[in-house]
Amino acid sequence: MEKEASSRLEWRINVPDGTLKTLEPETGVAGEIWVGLKGFIGGIVLRVWRALENAWNIGVADPRTVIHGVKVALALTVVSLFYYMRPLYDNFGGNNAIWAVMTVVVVFEYTVGATLSKCINRVIGTFLAGALAVGVHWVAEQSGDQFKPIILGISVFLLASGATFSRFIPSIKAHFDYGAMIFILTFSLVSVSGYRVVELLELADQRLSTVAIGTSMCILVTILFCPVWAGCELHRLVHQNIEKLADSLDECVSEYLKENRSGQEDLNKKKLGYKCVLNSKGAEESMANFARWEPRHGRFKFRNPWKQYLKIGASLRDCAYCIEALNGCISSEIKVKTMADKKMQAPPFLRKHFSDKCMKVSSYLISVLKELAMSIMKMQKSSKIDCKVAEMNLAVEELKDSLKSLPPHLIASTGEESNETKTMVKEGGGHPGRIMMVLPLVTVVSLLAEIAVRVGGVVDAVEELARLAEFKPAKDGKPQAKPNYVRTYFRKSKSSDHV
Amino acid sequence: MEKEASSRLEWRINVPDGTLKTLEPETGVAGEIWVGLKGFIGGIVLRVWRALENAWNIGVADPRTVIHGVKVALALTVVSLFYYMRPLYDNFGGNNAIWAVMTVVVVFEYTVGATLSKCINRVIGTFLAGALAVGVHWVAEQSGDQFKPIILGISVFLLASGATFSRFIPSIKAHFDYGAMIFILTFSLVSVSGYRVVELLELADQRLSTVAIGTSMCILVTILFCPVWAGCELHRLVHQNIEKLADSLDECVSEYLKENRSGQEDLNKKKLGYKCVLNSKGAEESMANFARWEPRHGRFKFRNPWKQYLKIGASLRDCAYCIEALNGCISSEIKVKTMADKKMQAPPFLRKHFSDKCMKVSSYLISVLKELAMSIMKMQKSSKIDCKVAEMNLAVEELKDSLKSLPPHLIASTGEESNETKTMVKEGGGHPGRIMMVLPLVTVVSLLAEIAVRVGGVVDAVEELARLAEFKPAKDGKPQAKPNYVRTYFRKSKSSDHV
Repeated sequence: MEKEASSRLEWRINVPDGTLKTLEPETGVAGEIWVGLKGFIGGIVLRVWRALENAWNIGVADPRTVIHGVKVALALTVVSLFYYMRPLYDNFGGNNAIWAVMTVVVVFEYTVGATLSKCINRVIGTFLAGALAVGVHWVAEQSGDQFKPIILGISVFLLASGATFSRFIPSIKAHFDYGAMIFILTFSLVSVSGYRVVELLELADQRLSTVAIGTSMCILVTILFCPVWAGCELHRLVHQNIEKLADSLDECVSEYLKENRSGQEDLNKKKLGYKCVLNSKGAEESMANFARWEPRHGRFKFRNPWKQYLKIGASLRDCAYCIEALNGCISSEIKVKTMADKKMQAPPFLRKHFSDKCMKVSSYLISVLKELAMSIMKMQKSSKIDCKVAEMNLAVEELKDSLKSLPPHLIASTGEESNETKTMVKEGGGHPGRIMMVLPLVTVVSLLAEIAVRVGGVVDAVEELARLAEFKPAKDGKPQAKPNYVRTYFRKSKSSDHV
Repeated sequence: MEKEASSRLEWRINVPDGTLKTLEPETGVAGEIWVGLKGFIGGIVLRVWRALENAWNIGVADPRTVIHGVKVALALTVVSLFYYMRPLYDNFGGNNAIWAVMTVVVVFEYTVGATLSKCINRVIGTFLAGALAVGVHWVAEQSGDQFKPIILGISVFLLASGATFSRFIPSIKAHFDYGAMIFILTFSLVSVSGYRVVELLELADQRLSTVAIGTSMCILVTILFCPVWAGCELHRLVHQNIEKLADSLDECVSEYLKENRSGQEDLNKKKLGYKCVLNSKGAEESMANFARWEPRHGRFKFRNPWKQYLKIGASLRDCAYCIEALNGCISSEIKVKTMADKKMQAPPFLRKHFSDKCMKVSSYLISVLKELAMSIMKMQKSSKIDCKVAEMNLAVEELKDSLKSLPPHLIASTGEESNETKTMVKEGGGHPGRIMMVLPLVTVVSLLAEIAVRVGGVVDAVEELARLAEFKPAKDGKPQAKPNYVRTYFRKSKSSDHV
């Protein structure tokens, strides 16, 4: 490690290799210091190198982060040079350049929605506070030099405490947090400035134009060069989360049912996709907040029902909780499998009995989820979704029925025995606790049924979104008429129950 | 509603009641306008009133929000008046006041840790960027007036894009996000200022002292007046979350097992406590980030293992996921209960068979959780926790055993029948699908066992915290020796398995 670092060090500070070698054999104090220094600098270089490598990976994984950096720099450089070139360095002019630069740095955010939200907040906050401050200033001026600082002080105290407190109110926190801060800032700045009202108006005029230049530069750059729309991101996050859930469920169930598995690593990564869903609440909420400010873009109109995306997200998390529990129960059982206590585990013939049914349910669940993801992605109403939901419910009913019709000899000590059970009995040497063998299966079945209920919730949420966002009907013509038997079963299973 | 609003309106704009009444009968254009206006203003007054009511409730629920507002206002007023009183209005002085005010507004956060983090970020960012900017300025000055803007422009572009991109790197985003922004801001401001290097140094000197006054005022006020420590908040959040989980579990299980319930509302609120745990990840992470910056306070030393609190939080969420699934399964079953399909529900005598055992497990789970909460709250090692964990595992084993030893006649069609089963058979009129009756019970048992495993994870995380944070030993002397039988069972249950 040190070797590697020192070779980089040489390259960095241009010490020819020869000098290093002549210095190394020297073991005096100077030599020790040199070695220590080399290690220290080498460590720093190594850390810097790793940080750069890390940064490079982040940039490669999502090039839009790099583009965002370039966008900010572009807006900043243009504004800086604009003010640097203009001979504006009178008393106010110098300040103006400051405000333009500050506006760009503070207001430019990753998504268009966030940038717009901050711009609008800044403009409203500045305007309200400025107007109020000029009013208070005027009153203070009328009451003479003695009372002026007192009036200004009291007004700053009251408004600052009120505005700061208002940032705890949820609706203000969500939409106008930044505006409240700018309000306090502007009001205090005007109060402390000590200008007369006439000067203030002149100042306000200049500063407003400066801030306008800054904000419009931000808005132009953020919209024109590779815009990142919060709405698009939210849309993509939601349909990707649905796909992740489907993949997780797939991996979970097939891991449980299949005996021989390969590509463990890749499977695990897919299997843990539901964890992303569990943790995406914050991202979804902030994106929905920002998306409200965005104008029409791409396939999204100005007042797209972004809140409905949050509801879909919530219903997806409900599913993910269940998949988490399923995954937990399954891994507990897999742990058992590696231990000696074979009794507790569902025996192979029972697994086989349920394997097909469970796979069927899970494949229908996955197919419903994938259909939903596709429907959201294409922003089209799905013609098949009703049919698929009916099939899913049918499969769940069948799975439950198969549990109901489980031959009693599999779980109790008397009755006919199939060949398989006979061998098992020979192996096991007795029947006590045979019910324990079905327990894991029963849990998996219950959880699958519960997941089906919750997927139903996702379906409802997506259908509501399709209604609100006016999704186009599917291209392949009219919605398919549901076959009669499916309808009957569907109704039956709706009024029916879940284990 | 309008009546109420208008009466408030009268009070507000001091229109005597009489005028209103004489105006109302008039049905001309003026009257209509008056009525419309009245409605409009009334609506606004009503909304303002509601907002005030809402704000009042928030203030009453947590008075520290109001105190925070007063603290910010105090710091701001003192700084404002300080600069307003001093005759500092030369070219730089005016700016200085701006910087002091701006520092206070931008840097003052709710918790001490957040304020300190922002202060340190601001100082480091300003210092680095200032030094670099002076250096670049010097180089640009040496290369003549022609190249100066070009060099400045290029340097602003490169540094701004680099620093903006660096904000996407997770470690920088977590700790130095604000510092990176301040870095860009300061560098651009110095570059655009157009001063010569000598002037810059003078400016830097003045501005540094101003920013120092602003930050130290913030730090003083935030620490001296009712400080809100991020560490304390995190500590409290975690042990409250443990208690919430215990309460949720309690309500869930007893709702399932008990037939007659009262005080539904209160129960529901307690029952849904686990939802807070599910959503507290973001809050925990930001608090842990801020707590790192806090000095020794109360019972917490400077480098308290705050990250371990995050691990406890994660293990609590693992439990909460399972409780969510349990809750889902239970409410599905309760829904079934209200429907006619009685067959699917676990019959009363079976419930009774398990009721005690389930209650026992859940009460041990709760007792372990409460003990953990108490241990964290008091920052004492618990002397009883090992014992309680052993008892919990014992109870889980017993519950599983009781499922194992379930008389076969309860689930299959042959064998001896107890009095209870006989009546049931008479009522039911047949045995098909009797296994279906145990299904919900089996699921509840499985999930309880899984929750016990996950509570074990919480215990481990809390014990690790006790080790890292050097919790005091419990006051009631030496840790209790575990009874022998408990030890044996404990070891057995550890090597054993979970359904």
